[in-house]
Amino acid sequence: MTSAQQPDRVQADQHPSPQSRTSLQEDERWMVRALQLALSSVGLASPNPAVGCVLVKDGTVVGEGFHAYDRLDHAEVVALRQAGEKARGATAYVTLEPCCHTGRTGPCTEALIQAGVARVVAATGDPNPQVSGKGLARLRDAGITAEEGVLRREAQEQNDAFARYIRTGMPFVTLKAGVSFDGRIAPPPGTAPIGRTTFITGEESRAEVQRMRHAADAIMTGIHTILNDDPLLTDRSGLARRRPLLRVVLDSALRLPLDSQLVRTAKDDVLIFCTIPVTDRQRALEAMGVRVERVESSPEGSRVSLRRVLERLGEMQMTSVLLEAGSQLNSSALTEEHVDRLALFYAPVFLGSVAVPLLGAVDAPQIHPDRITVDAFGRDLRVLGYLRDPWL
Amino acid sequence: MTSAQQPDRVQADQHPSPQSRTSLQEDERWMVRALQLALSSVGLASPNPAVGCVLVKDGTVVGEGFHAYDRLDHAEVVALRQAGEKARGATAYVTLEPCCHTGRTGPCTEALIQAGVARVVAATGDPNPQVSGKGLARLRDAGITAEEGVLRREAQEQNDAFARYIRTGMPFVTLKAGVSFDGRIAPPPGTAPIGRTTFITGEESRAEVQRMRHAADAIMTGIHTILNDDPLLTDRSGLARRRPLLRVVLDSALRLPLDSQLVRTAKDDVLIFCTIPVTDRQRALEAMGVRVERVESSPEGSRVSLRRVLERLGEMQMTSVLLEAGSQLNSSALTEEHVDRLALFYAPVFLGSVAVPLLGAVDAPQIHPDRITVDAFGRDLRVLGYLRDPWL
Repeated sequence: MTSAQQPDRVQADQHPSPQSRTSLQEDERWMVRALQLALSSVGLASPNPAVGCVLVKDGTVVGEGFHAYDRLDHAEVVALRQAGEKARGATAYVTLEPCCHTGRTGPCTEALIQAGVARVVAATGDPNPQVSGKGLARLRDAGITAEEGVLRREAQEQNDAFARYIRTGMPFVTLKAGVSFDGRIAPPPGTAPIGRTTFITGEESRAEVQRMRHAADAIMTGIHTILNDDPLLTDRSGLARRRPLLRVVLDSALRLPLDSQLVRTAKDDVLIFCTIPVTDRQRALEAMGVRVERVESSPEGSRVSLRRVLERLGEMQMTSVLLEAGSQLNSSALTEEHVDRLALFYAPVFLGSVAVPLLGAVDAPQIHPDRITVDAFGRDLRVLGYLRDPWL
Repeated sequence: MTSAQQPDRVQADQHPSPQSRTSLQEDERWMVRALQLALSSVGLASPNPAVGCVLVKDGTVVGEGFHAYDRLDHAEVVALRQAGEKARGATAYVTLEPCCHTGRTGPCTEALIQAGVARVVAATGDPNPQVSGKGLARLRDAGITAEEGVLRREAQEQNDAFARYIRTGMPFVTLKAGVSFDGRIAPPPGTAPIGRTTFITGEESRAEVQRMRHAADAIMTGIHTILNDDPLLTDRSGLARRRPLLRVVLDSALRLPLDSQLVRTAKDDVLIFCTIPVTDRQRALEAMGVRVERVESSPEGSRVSLRRVLERLGEMQMTSVLLEAGSQLNSSALTEEHVDRLALFYAPVFLGSVAVPLLGAVDAPQIHPDRITVDAFGRDLRVLGYLRDPWL
């Protein structure tokens, strides 16, 4: 079940070609395959986009590829190499517009032209306004049929983080929470057994949260969550990732316990933002493999400036942040409009008014999530919603 | 989207007949039609069940009917009368097992036998354990092929209220609320314009709530909701109904304002439950067309006993109650296990911790809604869930 939005199939810049032998259904079928390939990029491509490419000739796949940052080659080049001579006259289905500039590798447009590809179908244009459209234009200049917009929405969702990051320098922030049907994220403080996290959601939801952590560059929480729950905040999906999940804690007064699970497992993958000057405690944390950064306070007081933290994470090439926090940080992030997407896992339980609410006070009548979709995970319902479109 | 439950297609008491010419798909197709007919019973059949019947012969409908209480005739008899002689050799699709006893009308089984019907397919057996199975057994004794279980779940959902009522004497209670994504049912008290209800949900949800009111025999709320919102609590669906929607208020100290919308529109369809002895105020309310009943208090104090109220409503042949209440009454109804079904309309907005919560304190770790389904109404999500199965 989803809200009314169906994927737009806007075919901007499309030049219908009379010699095109493939139907729309065929195009979508191959693009689905390219999107599946792009899923292999997740965890391996960031801070580059996830991209998949399929080369099809006479109804048969002649080459496939996806991008992994450490392998350098873009998805198109991987697929072209696999296809060899068979690439001549083939159609390339690619989930993102091919690049036409030299970065860490040469331009993909030139590789496609040189290989003699006849037609290129891109799911979506590049989110970077400075290069968007130029790749397809270059291909057309070289006589290649170039189209855009097949499964655009699906392709864009795969690269929401890259789009947000490349357009603003800020990470794409997903507010994730496990919520009872009455909007509570934890039993009343002090009622749970010490050292034991009480799960509201079921194991299917928690497995999905691990997949979401795998897809994120960083995870962020507040010091209260550490003090209350002593979480690990690791990616336990079991899936390969290029960079360790950066575990970020907002801890203005540097109260992070040296014996917390977070500190005990730190391997340069724990980053604490505080507002106080360097202390012995900071030195002790750093000696245990924890990074500590001092940033300015939020305008109204002693808290860490969330905007400044996100800017810093962007500077570190963190394209996405999963916010798994308590009422206070959730409220601040929403009210200050730092959240791009919601992922609320509603569990069919009721905790009542003494339990911890999803949000503290909010001053956010403007917050209206859009493009809402619902999926079942076991007995829970995951509600996804966008607070803004990172592609716009 | 629904959780994993698909309608069970348990074919209890089925005697597959070699001469059966219709396939399962055919049976389901005609039963869908019978279920549609039964929808016409809604608002007109209570306290009887909603029932639809289709008579099919040689792939053609020869008779149709649904039950309306005031018309006396059961759905089968309406359809048989329409079919006349064509009923001979036909198959009767009926959403509930035909009765075999004389009540306000003669037994439907005898009417089907006399008309020469060859086969009877019932979606579900009668929920009354004292008669369940007897109708089909009587038909089989008369040489008619009788089957049960085609679209059972769908048929049972149409008569949840009747099932609860006939099995326990208590009405089927649906807790309905419009809820923000963070579990709030109203802005902070005092922030809404006086005399104006602030709607959390959208107009599609509110139209659906009117349809739910139309399907209910009674609507119930607490005095705080009256004092805060001054609601009408009427059925404004525009659909025909046999009995006016009984508007019930739990008002232990009889604080209902004489100038409230409820009192000003009362026409013997407003029923107040209080715990105090007869006062001038009671006499004043009664003079304005409001019924007042004194019931015992809840065990722990001054509130009206919810159990006693529901028993009284059952005695009045109210088969279903829509609970549209505030935090306190919602919590009591859930904690005391008076709620059969939830209907939570989640609107994509956030109100924060100062707003009114869906529930007050609850002591209800045992409350786990089941058979959860989600439907979109505009931008809202309606989550339906059962707290118990009225058919079990």
